Amino acid sequence: MVNEKKVKSIYRKEIALIEKKLKVLLRGREPESLYLPCTYILESGGKHLRPFLVLISAKAVGGEFNKVRNAAIAVEVLHNFTLVHDDIMDNSNKRRGKPTVHKKYDLSTAILAGDNLIAIAYENLLKDTRKFSQESISTFTEGIIDVCEGQSLDKEFENRSAVSLSEYEKMIYKKTAALAEICCSIGAQLSGGTKSQIRAVANYGKYLGMAFQIQDDLLDITAEENEFGKTIGSDLIEGKKTFLFLKALEKAKGKDKADLVRVIRQKGIDKTEIEKYKNLYIKLGVLTDAEREILKYTKLALKNLSTLPNAEGKELMSWLANNLISRKK
Amino acid sequence: MVNEKKVKSIYRKEIALIEKKLKVLLRGREPESLYLPCTYILESGGKHLRPFLVLISAKAVGGEFNKVRNAAIAVEVLHNFTLVHDDIMDNSNKRRGKPTVHKKYDLSTAILAGDNLIAIAYENLLKDTRKFSQESISTFTEGIIDVCEGQSLDKEFENRSAVSLSEYEKMIYKKTAALAEICCSIGAQLSGGTKSQIRAVANYGKYLGMAFQIQDDLLDITAEENEFGKTIGSDLIEGKKTFLFLKALEKAKGKDKADLVRVIRQKGIDKTEIEKYKNLYIKLGVLTDAEREILKYTKLALKNLSTLPNAEGKELMSWLANNLISRKK
Repeated sequence: MVNEKKVKSIYRKEIALIEKKLKVLLRGREPESLYLPCTYILESGGKHLRPFLVLISAKAVGGEFNKVRNAAIAVEVLHNFTLVHDDIMDNSNKRRGKPTVHKKYDLSTAILAGDNLIAIAYENLLKDTRKFSQESISTFTEGIIDVCEGQSLDKEFENRSAVSLSEYEKMIYKKTAALAEICCSIGAQLSGGTKSQIRAVANYGKYLGMAFQIQDDLLDITAEENEFGKTIGSDLIEGKKTFLFLKALEKAKGKDKADLVRVIRQKGIDKTEIEKYKNLYIKLGVLTDAEREILKYTKLALKNLSTLPNAEGKELMSWLANNLISRKK
Repeated sequence: MVNEKKVKSIYRKEIALIEKKLKVLLRGREPESLYLPCTYILESGGKHLRPFLVLISAKAVGGEFNKVRNAAIAVEVLHNFTLVHDDIMDNSNKRRGKPTVHKKYDLSTAILAGDNLIAIAYENLLKDTRKFSQESISTFTEGIIDVCEGQSLDKEFENRSAVSLSEYEKMIYKKTAALAEICCSIGAQLSGGTKSQIRAVANYGKYLGMAFQIQDDLLDITAEENEFGKTIGSDLIEGKKTFLFLKALEKAKGKDKADLVRVIRQKGIDKTEIEKYKNLYIKLGVLTDAEREILKYTKLALKNLSTLPNAEGKELMSWLANNLISRKK
């Protein structure tokens, strides 16, 4: 029985606290040429889901928010490192409505800011791990390796003509879900969770991450432009091999298939063709396939909560999972 | 009483072991698109001074090489991360006689490979810290922050007309000496060194690093091209604000000063002018000033060894410091 109002108020309060902490995190550090761009990205907003996962996983195994706040900041800082470097690799001009770091500053500054954020992330994590084993530092480290491997696969897929759906799922696991997984693991590890509790919240995070990424693919074509904050159909314009695209490619025949293969060969489509491809997706039923996949992963995530000891933590986790399904951005 | 022959044989054996370990470090990991470039830089040679500092600092406080070999690999991997990213920022085409990672592969690959190497470095460090406190992980983390801050200052100085010698020394401390310092700290920390022993080896590393960097500046103008492996005078060609240049600027008057200011304004000189500027350096006595500075830092480094308990470790540290003064590359 989820008390929606209470849960929402906890969520809002915690997100506000995280934003406040991020604003002052690097205050007074020098040189400015390094810390201004670092602060610029940390202050740029975002949903702050990853730190929230750390907090609620701690709670769910009987721990306290207060004991894992630095670890929560650590995962958010780490996430921001990936954004800065990914934006360079993807040649993105805008992020959250503002110029990306390498556009506002320059390439060198963005590379260095990202590098520095990795160390700043560890620095914060280490504040919460003092009294514990090194397990969570190892978990964190493996998470960074997963993220790099995932991004490497993603870039590799851009230049490959054939990518299977299972390769795609492995990639988004590494690129997105693994970090959500380690957020939950760390929250539970630092709160003295048992091995099976740590495994349970880690699985929750992993499946939530999978659902989240496929929903991102879906929103790219179904969202309202004003709400979404990005150009609708940008994945198609860039010729990205998303769940929708690969599923469509799997199901299509004849001329439909040829139209999809053309997207790969030409590395994207023109803006004027988005409607045509959206209709093709609808005709092939891949939007429904994506919804089904999202629901599958969300259910898999929720299944892990049953054995956890703390009711409020479980409520928060369950609310978050259900809430993400209906997100519009 | 340094037994030169024994010390040299230990050095050669250990460096060979490090190179062997680096070769197989990432074997079997996927995707290739990420690990080929990582292995490419790890196998590219170099002096491996940083891992050697970890080993001899361990020994000097009474520890064993065997207990810090992974930490030694960690600092070398970390150093290689800085090379990959610095080469992008400096737009360098060659490193150790081979194409730099971003030239051999591409920008995205080099950014990702560097990022991944940071995590691989932590992964290795964590293998040797299992039974110890987190102190060395914090030291390592602060070292990365120093390196980023130092590189940021270095880039900042490129675009500034006035840089003082003390600003320069602060920059090379962060960019070069801090990492040598943490190598020594970590070696001693992981070997159960006392606080004052850790401080002693850390100071040794710091001063050695300062001497090393100023010697690098000196070799750029005094080395034999064949031995050095780099173009002689490249710092002048690129208009870098090295120890020599800043010292010359401090001492020069009249036309000499104007010639030096012109290097800043034009962001470097032509290859044909190197001889002229070398003669100016000689006339102003800054080559001698650099030698004196190198000797000063080397003596400061050696001064720290007296209180350390292990004779062989101390011999190794003393040999290394004296050996670096006479290096030709």
